[in-house]
Amino acid sequence: MLPVSPPLSFPHAMYHEGDVSSPQGFWCDGLNAHLRDDSLDLALLVSAAAAQFAGVFTTNAVRAAPVELTRAVHLGGISRAAIINSKNANALTGAGGAEDAAAMQAETAQRLGILPAEVAVASTGVIGVSLPMEQVSAGIAQLTARFGEGRTPDGLAAAQAILTTDTAVKCGAMTVECESGSVEIGMMVKGSGMIHPQMATMLAFFTTDAAIDKPMLDQILRRVVDRSFHRVTVDGDQSTNDMALIWANGCSGVAINKPQDLVWFEHGLTELARHGARMMAADGEGATHLIMVKVAGAATEADAALKARAIASSSLVKTAVYGRDPNWGRVLAAAGSVGLPWQPEKASLTMNGLALFVEGEPVIGQETAWSASMNRSEIEFVLDLAAGSESGEAFGCDLTDGYVEINAHYRT
Amino acid sequence: MLPVSPPLSFPHAMYHEGDVSSPQGFWCDGLNAHLRDDSLDLALLVSAAAAQFAGVFTTNAVRAAPVELTRAVHLGGISRAAIINSKNANALTGAGGAEDAAAMQAETAQRLGILPAEVAVASTGVIGVSLPMEQVSAGIAQLTARFGEGRTPDGLAAAQAILTTDTAVKCGAMTVECESGSVEIGMMVKGSGMIHPQMATMLAFFTTDAAIDKPMLDQILRRVVDRSFHRVTVDGDQSTNDMALIWANGCSGVAINKPQDLVWFEHGLTELARHGARMMAADGEGATHLIMVKVAGAATEADAALKARAIASSSLVKTAVYGRDPNWGRVLAAAGSVGLPWQPEKASLTMNGLALFVEGEPVIGQETAWSASMNRSEIEFVLDLAAGSESGEAFGCDLTDGYVEINAHYRT
Repeated sequence: MLPVSPPLSFPHAMYHEGDVSSPQGFWCDGLNAHLRDDSLDLALLVSAAAAQFAGVFTTNAVRAAPVELTRAVHLGGISRAAIINSKNANALTGAGGAEDAAAMQAETAQRLGILPAEVAVASTGVIGVSLPMEQVSAGIAQLTARFGEGRTPDGLAAAQAILTTDTAVKCGAMTVECESGSVEIGMMVKGSGMIHPQMATMLAFFTTDAAIDKPMLDQILRRVVDRSFHRVTVDGDQSTNDMALIWANGCSGVAINKPQDLVWFEHGLTELARHGARMMAADGEGATHLIMVKVAGAATEADAALKARAIASSSLVKTAVYGRDPNWGRVLAAAGSVGLPWQPEKASLTMNGLALFVEGEPVIGQETAWSASMNRSEIEFVLDLAAGSESGEAFGCDLTDGYVEINAHYRT
Repeated sequence: MLPVSPPLSFPHAMYHEGDVSSPQGFWCDGLNAHLRDDSLDLALLVSAAAAQFAGVFTTNAVRAAPVELTRAVHLGGISRAAIINSKNANALTGAGGAEDAAAMQAETAQRLGILPAEVAVASTGVIGVSLPMEQVSAGIAQLTARFGEGRTPDGLAAAQAILTTDTAVKCGAMTVECESGSVEIGMMVKGSGMIHPQMATMLAFFTTDAAIDKPMLDQILRRVVDRSFHRVTVDGDQSTNDMALIWANGCSGVAINKPQDLVWFEHGLTELARHGARMMAADGEGATHLIMVKVAGAATEADAALKARAIASSSLVKTAVYGRDPNWGRVLAAAGSVGLPWQPEKASLTMNGLALFVEGEPVIGQETAWSASMNRSEIEFVLDLAAGSESGEAFGCDLTDGYVEINAHYRT
């Protein structure tokens, strides 16, 4: 994975290393259940108390069996655990796939002594192949036994076990200082497959020891996902298995319900999720550059975000960045292909702070400075449309030989 | 370019080898005007008579200067010539670019003794670099001199001169037997850059010696483009320079205005344009497989076409085909990501006639036959949604190391 700068710190929201077991009252671990090879592939998350629970799910018409189950948990609003596997998406697996997902949920619940309706299930990996349920069941038995024995939680093992083609674990934590007290938020995510973001499986898990009402948690999570993971994922164009989940178990004893506390909590969660989104982009399959796009001067935030995503997902932009070619024409053309009208003759574009195009005219003779700047692994384009005052961003990565190699031979 | 089967022949529409000079009263040629290297890069098309003229143009907010000029010719409705260059798109070139396009138009008109408003201009190539106008002017002088000398038209030279990263010329002709008599349609196109179809420059030129009224020509061209080039190009998401143009000069003496003749003419033009679209897909940069997708059993043709395009443009599908991996899960997931809802548990999918997924259940144990079938260079997916009776198609190609290599290093 390419290096990613940590989020900025604010007085009321401080980023630090951590994971989903950082907030009070959460336990997690991961192991190798032999679903395909010898790497970790099954993770368990348990909350000591019944947690308020919210989720945002893929809008793909083809939804994996675990997505349907976990959506039902979200509608119920209470969860105490999650069982997550990689290597196999349990998607397009027919009626048997739904039975397998329900069995994962029921076995985890039974061994933990909780209700099946309190267990979220998530899967990622190959589509269209049935889960090896004997191995899954044995893995659930082992993980729940570790929890029962009071073994120390292992956040990195859990974060490792949810990965597919990701090359690094993606965790983090945020301390939010509210008026009512200090609360902790933990995160683990997986991404990868960033060339066509809508088809990558994106899984995100957040835990917090704050107490937050379910309706408020729903609203906050939806807004946060829109400003983070949806900026690497085209809205309404998602994979069969995407989900972002949050548990709020209240174990800190701090309730988040005052207006200022809600704002700070949401800000802390947003910054943590944006960091997760940037890590996903930076670990795009075969990536050699993280591409960050900001579109400013737009009429609406939605239009700015749409154009930013069009730029970050343009294969011509992505291959140009790979070739260290400051091909600003492709950037402007990508922005022109979607959304509200604008006038290129008024627009300006910078890359890593260097002007490429100013109020409709190309900048000439700066090729040496541009090329030098593209040796950095982070490339930031800022496009000012001069058509309003709203802005929006998107995160992507370049398109390389490595991407093609990985995806041409992933399944076989 | 991968091999492409010719269009089917019908009693009233017979495909044959030919080009834009095949219909009566059209002349064309191409030469090397030294716009960048020693390959052909400037083409001239001339009609002996004032022709009815129609065009369909990119909807990108960033439109190249020649697109604006040629749209004005289309609104005027009469054209006698076209001047077309490759190597340079004359897009995002500021005020100077508009002057250069107007100069190309004016110089061509002056040397042919016609009005500037009768000359279509098209450019394709690198964005954001000014045209070398001295070389362009010299090339226009040479080409118009050849026309003036009565030199034999050279359709292949013209077709060669409009190419960018295309690896082969793309021409063809169709004889349409109408009740009122026989007419000829000629074609030359360029495509390439098929990974994100919306960003490829697509140029298509049709000539016919039929006499057809301008309003009818407009309607026919728009429908034909929708069922051919728009099936390799996502609607509303087009490059800065895309255009499809048609000249009807009436030199055959046959007027197309009876209902049956209009149907046959449109059918012949559609089949010719579909052949052009398939050739574009088969010459996608770095392609090793032509991908043809048909979605059937849809509620509407538009929804079927939308889903077919989503499949043909999915990078995960494209890389799987490159890897000769019959990864039908990616095909269904791509179809699920867009458009009207449908039920995967009722759907069926075939590849080259082999069943992959039948009424919601994966087919097991046919991997050997599937792999053998993927050694063919043409891969056809047929997805039956079982949700209606409409169908639609899309054409694409696989995504390979070759694509990345070409686009990472095209400009520099």
